[in-house]
Amino acid sequence: MISAWSKKKTKQMSDFNSIAASLQDAHTVGVASHLRPDADALGSTIAFALWLESTGKKVVALNEEGATSKFRYLPRHEIIAVPEGSPVDCDVFVALDTSVKSRLGTVLNVIPKHIPLLNIDHHVSNEQYGTLNLVDSTSPATGQILVEFFQHIGAPISRDMATNLFAAISTDTGSFQYEGTNERTFAAASRLISCGVDVSALSRDMYDCHPRRRFELLRHALNTAEFHSDNRIASFTLPLAVAQELRVLPEDNEGIIDHLRAVEGVEAAVFFEELEDGNVRVSARSKNPEVDVCKVCREFHGGGHKMAAGARITGALNQVKNDFLNALDHEIHNRN
Amino acid sequence: MISAWSKKKTKQMSDFNSIAASLQDAHTVGVASHLRPDADALGSTIAFALWLESTGKKVVALNEEGATSKFRYLPRHEIIAVPEGSPVDCDVFVALDTSVKSRLGTVLNVIPKHIPLLNIDHHVSNEQYGTLNLVDSTSPATGQILVEFFQHIGAPISRDMATNLFAAISTDTGSFQYEGTNERTFAAASRLISCGVDVSALSRDMYDCHPRRRFELLRHALNTAEFHSDNRIASFTLPLAVAQELRVLPEDNEGIIDHLRAVEGVEAAVFFEELEDGNVRVSARSKNPEVDVCKVCREFHGGGHKMAAGARITGALNQVKNDFLNALDHEIHNRN
Repeated sequence: MISAWSKKKTKQMSDFNSIAASLQDAHTVGVASHLRPDADALGSTIAFALWLESTGKKVVALNEEGATSKFRYLPRHEIIAVPEGSPVDCDVFVALDTSVKSRLGTVLNVIPKHIPLLNIDHHVSNEQYGTLNLVDSTSPATGQILVEFFQHIGAPISRDMATNLFAAISTDTGSFQYEGTNERTFAAASRLISCGVDVSALSRDMYDCHPRRRFELLRHALNTAEFHSDNRIASFTLPLAVAQELRVLPEDNEGIIDHLRAVEGVEAAVFFEELEDGNVRVSARSKNPEVDVCKVCREFHGGGHKMAAGARITGALNQVKNDFLNALDHEIHNRN
Repeated sequence: MISAWSKKKTKQMSDFNSIAASLQDAHTVGVASHLRPDADALGSTIAFALWLESTGKKVVALNEEGATSKFRYLPRHEIIAVPEGSPVDCDVFVALDTSVKSRLGTVLNVIPKHIPLLNIDHHVSNEQYGTLNLVDSTSPATGQILVEFFQHIGAPISRDMATNLFAAISTDTGSFQYEGTNERTFAAASRLISCGVDVSALSRDMYDCHPRRRFELLRHALNTAEFHSDNRIASFTLPLAVAQELRVLPEDNEGIIDHLRAVEGVEAAVFFEELEDGNVRVSARSKNPEVDVCKVCREFHGGGHKMAAGARITGALNQVKNDFLNALDHEIHNRN
């Protein structure tokens, strides 16, 4: 990670200068991120918008869904608007944390044609769709790229900017735990705290505040959990009827599967969610770098990473479950 | 936090020099930490022992319980021995992360009399029992003090030392979330990663590996959870019979209560554990800085911090539960 970064550093610095130059003369700047936004998407958008405002520019910050209720803890989140009919009046547009242009969703309808599009992102799969592309896949969050950008150009980071950027980095790294979390991540977090982030209050907002229905969902998950393949696989299923009864939203599922994966001896955990359209959404997580859940998901036309992958499979819940678990059992046993 | 640190910095630097000077001429050094050790206790002990060894000294690293099974992921943990009958042969003894001397437990029996005792700790309640005391309560972990000590004296930090120190800091801050986590904490973590810590593998060991019985305990907790006082209080109880049936160990309880506290609207969560001696162990956590659970625990001769406190109360489980919840309800409603 460090060495990849060293090699990229010179290019990165020059990209930072190009981004700053592109924004220099703009009067109004549009800023947006991907649909179904997470805290990296919204936090980066808000922080970038606040910085632009602090330099005297007019800013239009957008997201297809606006600042969703789960992220109302982000300071100044009300700066983010939902795009409306006609193109916004701006000289430059900045897409943040968005690997594929189409993931801007309805925001795409309001970006004026023939203006520069700056693409700032950390996803390795980024399609380089911008007029200018600053894609740094050695950063585990777009928020980290922005901290380094602000430091490079000598921009002061206000407390509100810092809180948004800290939330972006913390959530995208699973509280500084996931693969890709590097020494620059911690250095960026250290800098943000010096700008006034209240770590414990923000952490309570990020991690200790789930709706009651998520508690009920977790209870359901633990009560219906099953262990397979000599306890090396754990799974749980969410039938549509239960999801409707508990009024579960898609965002509630986040992290539930980790409780199964965390059981000693379990090498892979799988979540089967029955959807309204007759498909089953399968999410698989591996705890053993040698168990490749992406390989199994690809057999069902899904994809992802080696240790975190998914698929949408047509069929009855129980049938899909049996088929997938058999394939996963095969992956686990063939490896040895 | 920063300002407290600035004031303390000069003293800290002089303390670092005194510690280094005290160890300079020692041939054999004893190192130990508190009983019922956590990862800060063991990780700090191992890292300090490895550093001493790297300078050519003989080291005796001890803990009353040795390196308990939960912490076998700490590299070189086998360096820690259980104290045996006669005093160890050493010139200097170092107590780490131990606020009260008696918490060294059976290690106390083997420390030779009349040798210097160095007391390095981060607890504000430290009783300054050493010949030399380096107590820095602006550090959220003893591991952080050691990183700063090694940096100050220019000692290289090996990968094994770094992994132990990272585990110490990460676990004592709840993965960089608790009150007291500061910019120096992140700076120390950044430094440790540059020394070779594999963050994601270590995080799996620290946070994603619970025995199956803990999974069963969590399930029991969620199934028996109760909400009181207009859902502002959540509680769960663990009767002795259930604990015995699930073969629960004290360490399994850690973090269970957080699942109740994390429910939206809940301001305080309480865990009632029936003990063999006729007492009930009460653990209370607040999510609202204005709800002082320590005040309530003190009514029952317990103590702790404003947002995390506990008590041991004599009585039948249900009676204790009712009495405590009434007192807590009073605290919540009187505040308004």
